[in-house]
Amino acid sequence: MSTPSRRVEVQEQILGANERLASENHVRLEEAGVFSLNLMASPGAGKTSLVERTVEALAAQMRIGVVDGDIATSLDADRAAAAGAAAIQINTGGQCHLDAHMLRGALDQLDLEALDLLIVENVGNLICPTGFPLGTHASVLVASVPEGDDKPYKYPGSYRGIEVLVVNKIDLLPYVPFQMDRFTQGVEMLNPGVLTFRLSCQTGEGLGAWLDWVRRAVEAQRQKRGQG
Amino acid sequence: MSTPSRRVEVQEQILGANERLASENHVRLEEAGVFSLNLMASPGAGKTSLVERTVEALAAQMRIGVVDGDIATSLDADRAAAAGAAAIQINTGGQCHLDAHMLRGALDQLDLEALDLLIVENVGNLICPTGFPLGTHASVLVASVPEGDDKPYKYPGSYRGIEVLVVNKIDLLPYVPFQMDRFTQGVEMLNPGVLTFRLSCQTGEGLGAWLDWVRRAVEAQRQKRGQG
Repeated sequence: MSTPSRRVEVQEQILGANERLASENHVRLEEAGVFSLNLMASPGAGKTSLVERTVEALAAQMRIGVVDGDIATSLDADRAAAAGAAAIQINTGGQCHLDAHMLRGALDQLDLEALDLLIVENVGNLICPTGFPLGTHASVLVASVPEGDDKPYKYPGSYRGIEVLVVNKIDLLPYVPFQMDRFTQGVEMLNPGVLTFRLSCQTGEGLGAWLDWVRRAVEAQRQKRGQG
Repeated sequence: MSTPSRRVEVQEQILGANERLASENHVRLEEAGVFSLNLMASPGAGKTSLVERTVEALAAQMRIGVVDGDIATSLDADRAAAAGAAAIQINTGGQCHLDAHMLRGALDQLDLEALDLLIVENVGNLICPTGFPLGTHASVLVASVPEGDDKPYKYPGSYRGIEVLVVNKIDLLPYVPFQMDRFTQGVEMLNPGVLTFRLSCQTGEGLGAWLDWVRRAVEAQRQKRGQG
């Protein structure tokens, strides 16, 4: 078995290379004036549903690209494309997260100049993706009510490094044991004041505020480029 | 950055060492006559609730140990101990799965001769734990209805290598879009005829069949040891 120090060394080399590629991705997105999101969540929290609802609502107002990371199948990219986005699938071949190198390959396949918004849907995993920044403008964690109110306490890393928190499936609050106070307290300890949207992709409740925020962020990115 | 071949080589060394340690763990559990389960699932599918229900129901009939893997906190081990088990917490320090070496450390802390059943609750992750067998007698995947019926298609690896499938939160079926036929079809493609329990840890529906199976498996292990 490799020595622990050798393992750590290999790991640091991988993470360092990822940081460099993430910076390069960020520059490309900035230069093209594209606002970009990295959606992370447990399997089944509702990333793909949020992508669908967002694309359906905004496709008439802006040009949207979606990059779907998955360990198998192109089900998610198919759903994003059906909703009206330019969708690229990355099959990670079993790997548990996207990395900046994979996103670079996807950016190569997209006409960035023809996009206003890029949504990257990461692999469903609450742990591994947090260690691999992709170079997007904002990291969005999609939590969901049926997962339980203890998740910030148990997966602190995924709540710490994010700019936006979406709490999905609020329509299930009457049917599951979930204390919003306990959940929020855990989030506040890790990421005080983090921008939070509570919504249901199923019923549409609360989606408006999320969509307004995306619209404003895309507009701000456009104006920034116009001034650049 | 390390070369890909170097990364693969390090990875193979790690997996090979894990297999050896898993075999050693298995021998220890066999010799002590302990029947053992490796519970795997997405975050929030209900692993800990299943442990609680199982310990509450069976603690009067058998001696139960619980090993809880988590990247932070001892919330799960506290719940298992409160339900009546001898509980050991493994904090993985951020690592996304348990491995056989970590389980060995936990076995060292338990009096195996004083146990009939050992439940190992893996880290909440539908991808990484599948690559690291621990040496337990059966791998149990806990799926949950609100995660959606597409999960076997999207996370095939986690459905392939298991002996038992528990479909939890069936009380939420009326409130979420989940077609049991589509789910079952996906499971059957990957793991034909896998032993399946559909239940709700919240309402108790379907728990009896699961508990009967655990009881019988523990009894068979006891008899096997008696004859050995």
